Amino acid sequence: MSDKKSFNEHGPLKDAIWRQPHERASPERIAAVIGTARQVLGDRLSTNVTLCQQHAQGEGPVAPSMPDAVAFVETVDEIRRLLEQCHRERVPVVPFGAGSSLEGQVNAVCGGISLDLSRMNSIIEVNEEDMDCLIEPGVTREQLNSYIRDRGLFFPVDPGAECTIGGMCATRASGTNAVRYGTIRENVLGLEVVLADGRVISTGGRVRKAANGYDLTHLFIGSEGTLGVITKIRLRLHGVPEATSAAISQFPNLAAAVDTVFATMQLGIPIARVELLDDVQMGASIAYSKLDDLEPLPTLFFEFNGSTSSVKEQAELVEAVASEAGSLRFSWATGTEARNRLWTARHRAYPAAVALRPGAKGIATDVCVPISRLADAVLGAKEDIAASGLIAPIAGHVGDGNFHCCILVDPDDPSELERALALDHKIVERGLALGGTCSGEHGIGLGKRAFLQREHGVDALDVMQSLKAALDPRGILNPGKLFLDPALPT
Amino acid sequence: MSDKKSFNEHGPLKDAIWRQPHERASPERIAAVIGTARQVLGDRLSTNVTLCQQHAQGEGPVAPSMPDAVAFVETVDEIRRLLEQCHRERVPVVPFGAGSSLEGQVNAVCGGISLDLSRMNSIIEVNEEDMDCLIEPGVTREQLNSYIRDRGLFFPVDPGAECTIGGMCATRASGTNAVRYGTIRENVLGLEVVLADGRVISTGGRVRKAANGYDLTHLFIGSEGTLGVITKIRLRLHGVPEATSAAISQFPNLAAAVDTVFATMQLGIPIARVELLDDVQMGASIAYSKLDDLEPLPTLFFEFNGSTSSVKEQAELVEAVASEAGSLRFSWATGTEARNRLWTARHRAYPAAVALRPGAKGIATDVCVPISRLADAVLGAKEDIAASGLIAPIAGHVGDGNFHCCILVDPDDPSELERALALDHKIVERGLALGGTCSGEHGIGLGKRAFLQREHGVDALDVMQSLKAALDPRGILNPGKLFLDPALPT
Repeated sequence: MSDKKSFNEHGPLKDAIWRQPHERASPERIAAVIGTARQVLGDRLSTNVTLCQQHAQGEGPVAPSMPDAVAFVETVDEIRRLLEQCHRERVPVVPFGAGSSLEGQVNAVCGGISLDLSRMNSIIEVNEEDMDCLIEPGVTREQLNSYIRDRGLFFPVDPGAECTIGGMCATRASGTNAVRYGTIRENVLGLEVVLADGRVISTGGRVRKAANGYDLTHLFIGSEGTLGVITKIRLRLHGVPEATSAAISQFPNLAAAVDTVFATMQLGIPIARVELLDDVQMGASIAYSKLDDLEPLPTLFFEFNGSTSSVKEQAELVEAVASEAGSLRFSWATGTEARNRLWTARHRAYPAAVALRPGAKGIATDVCVPISRLADAVLGAKEDIAASGLIAPIAGHVGDGNFHCCILVDPDDPSELERALALDHKIVERGLALGGTCSGEHGIGLGKRAFLQREHGVDALDVMQSLKAALDPRGILNPGKLFLDPALPT
Repeated sequence: MSDKKSFNEHGPLKDAIWRQPHERASPERIAAVIGTARQVLGDRLSTNVTLCQQHAQGEGPVAPSMPDAVAFVETVDEIRRLLEQCHRERVPVVPFGAGSSLEGQVNAVCGGISLDLSRMNSIIEVNEEDMDCLIEPGVTREQLNSYIRDRGLFFPVDPGAECTIGGMCATRASGTNAVRYGTIRENVLGLEVVLADGRVISTGGRVRKAANGYDLTHLFIGSEGTLGVITKIRLRLHGVPEATSAAISQFPNLAAAVDTVFATMQLGIPIARVELLDDVQMGASIAYSKLDDLEPLPTLFFEFNGSTSSVKEQAELVEAVASEAGSLRFSWATGTEARNRLWTARHRAYPAAVALRPGAKGIATDVCVPISRLADAVLGAKEDIAASGLIAPIAGHVGDGNFHCCILVDPDDPSELERALALDHKIVERGLALGGTCSGEHGIGLGKRAFLQREHGVDALDVMQSLKAALDPRGILNPGKLFLDPALPT
C-alpha cells in the first residue's frame, strides 16, 4: 500500500481527497471494447455525453467522473461477454444501478464502461411456501413489495432511497427495519455473480442455512462492485404481520430517549423499527409538516409488528419503559392512516431539514456505534455541529446505533463544502473513538477510504486487497474504490 | 483441480473416500518446528502418542490421522509465533477445539501440529448494555450461558454437542434455536484471527451493522480452520425472554407435520424452536424414556419465547394451525419441569436411538433443503433407509429444512459402515436434487468434499480455492479439508 495518508493529511479539499491520480485505460483499448460491445449491444452501448454525465456520480458530494461509455445490459450473457473483453483489454467496469449511492461508488474515476443494470429488473420467481424470491439486480424495493404484497409477503430492507436491490447488496444497505429483520446481509440467500474474467458463479442457495464451504455470498455483499457484478439475487421474504402499530414518544433530553431504546431491546420487546429525531430535526419537521401538537424535543418513533394483541402489548410495554425513562408524552395508533400521521415527522425528515435552508443540499454522515455509546456519539456530534457553525439535523436508526447528521450546505460554495466535509470527518473520528464504524449503511466508495484503513488496520486491509487481487487480478472492477491504492488497469 | 471424481466414482469405501494420498512435511521440518515450539511452550508441546491419538479425529466415522505433535496454546502470541514458524517450514497446523466435529475436520491427514485451543477459554468481557461479549475460542456454550445467565442474557446457538464456540464458528454451526435467533453466522459480530503467516487481524467490531469493506468475519466463519486460526470472538447476546412455553403435537403422517411448520412460519408466529421426530425415533424414544402417553407417530416439538401473554398466544395460534393440518394431539406447558417433560423425547433422542441397537454407533446425515421440499426429502430418506436394511431414526430442525438421520452401525463391521456411508450419500444426492445443501450445520471436512464441488460447481470452487491460496499460499492451515485437491505443503 503506497499511500497511507489519512484524510487529514490529504487536507480537507474535496478534490484532493477524492481525486487520486488514477490511470485510465488507453484510448485504443477503450475503443476496442466499445467497438466489440456495440456489435452485441447495438445502441444500448452509448458514448453520448449526457448519458455519460448521468452515470458520472451518485447522490453524494463526491465530484463526478465520467465513464467513456454506458452499457445498458439486459442479460447475464451480455455482461459475461463484456467482462471477458474488458478483462482482456484491462478496461474498467463500474456497475451502476439507480445511481443513489452517497460515497462516490458509481463514479468512473478511471473511465471505462458504466455497466447500467437498471433494465435487468425482472422478478424471476417468488416461492410463497419457502418465502423466498429470485430477482434481477435492477429490481427496486418498491417494485418487489408491490409485486408480492397480495401474496401476504414483504421484503423488509428499506434504506429510504429508491435504490435497486442489486445496489443494496453491493453497498450492504439497511435502513429502518434492520433492528427486527436485519440488513440486506441477513436477507440474501444467494447470488449469481459474473467475475472479472467473465466466469459466472452461483453462491449460497435456497436453503436457510448451510455449512458448505466459504461464504461467498457475504463476500460479495458490501464489496461495492469491486469483486464481481451481481446478476441475480435470491432474497428471503417475510410474512406480512397480522397487525402493525406505531408510537411516538418525546423526551426532555437525548439520554432519556436512548435509555428507552436500551431498556426496550434488553426486555426483548421485538420492535420492528425505532427511529430518533433530535430537537433540531423535530423543530424543522414541526414547521414543515405543521405538527403543532409536538415539541421540538428528542423524539422516538416506534413500529410494532405481530398479532393484534401482541402489537398492543408491545406498545404498552414500551410506554411503561419510556415513562420510567422520563418520557413527556407517548401516543400510539394502529390504523394505517393514524400510524402514518404519527410517523409524519420521520417520513418527511429530509425535505423538512432542507427547508431549514432553502436551496441547500444535505450531506449525510453515517456513523454507527455500539448502542451504549450512542448518546455520547450524538451529543458529541451536536457539539461538533455547533462548533462548525453549520446546520445539521440528526436522524438515527437507534436500535442499531446508527445515525445520520444531514449537514446543510450551499452546493455553490466550495468553502462551505469543505467545512461540511471537515465536520463529517470529525463526527467519524469520534465514532471510531467510541468503538464504532465509519459507515453503518452508506458504504466506503471514494469518500471513506482512509477511514476504512484506520478502522481495520493495515493487515486486515491487506487481506481485503489480497482477496481483491485473487478475484480481479487486473483491477478492472470499479477501480479506485474502497482502497487508497487500487490495483489500476494498465 | 486435478481430481474431480464424485464420491460414487471413488467407490463407497471409507479409506478410498477419505484418505487421499497426502504429502506430509519432511521429518526434518517437523523436528525443527517442534524444537523451537518447545522453547516457547515447554511441556505444553507434546509428541505423546496417546495425546496425538486423542487429537487424530472428531466424533464422526472418518478414519483417524495422527498429528506429529499437539500444542496446548494459551495466548495469541504463542499462536502467532507458532504459525510464523510453521509457515516458514511449511508444516501443517490443524486447529482443534473440543474434537466434536463430525466430518473429519480435526483429523491431521498431513500430520503436523494439532493446535489445541481448549485452554483458551476466558470470557474476556460482557457488555450488558450492548448485549455482546468477547470470548476466547475454547469457551463452550454451556460455560458462557452459565456465566451470563444472572445478567438476564443468553447465547442462543445450541448445536447439542459440548463443543467450543471457536469450533462452532469454524464449522458454521447452528442447532435448534436457529429458526428464531439465527445460526452462529448471525450471532458473531467480529473475530480476531491469526493468519497462516502469523499476522493477527481483527474483523467486524462491536457495532450491530456496518457497510465497511469486505466481510472478513463471514469469510472465516465456516472456513473450517483453512483460512486462519480464530483467537477471539465477539458474540451477540440476547435478553432472556420473560416467559417460555413448550408444546408438542402428534400427526398421522409426516406431510401434516410439515404443513403445520409451513403455516406457522408464514403466519409469522415467532417460534423459538420447532423440531421433528419421525415415527421410528418416536418409537425409540417412547420405549427408552417410558413415554406411554405418546404414539410412535411424526411429532413436532415447539418452544415459544416472549411475554407471558405472548407465549400463551403463540401456543394457541400454533394449536389452531396444527389442528387444521390434522394434528391428533397438542399439549403445551409453561413451567420449566413440565416443559422439559414435554421435550423429553427430543432431548434424549440420541441415546434412545442408539438403544434400538445396543452397541451401535450413530452416523448423522445432515441434509438441509428448502422447507417446501422437506417432506419429499424426509420421505425419500425413509425409502432409502428401508432399502438399505439399516435402522436410522430421523430428527429434524424443521423450521430451517435441516434434518439428521441417525444411521445405526456396528462400529466393528466395515461392510456395514460401507452401507451406511452409501446410504448417507444417497440421502445427500436426493437433498441436492431437491435444491438443498449437503450440509446444514456439520460442515464439509473430509467427508463431504466431493459434494461441495457438486453443489457449487467448478468455478465457484475455484473461487474458494483462489481465496485459500491468497490467504494461505503455502497450504499449511488444515490441509486436505474442504477441497479434493488441497494445496499441500511441500
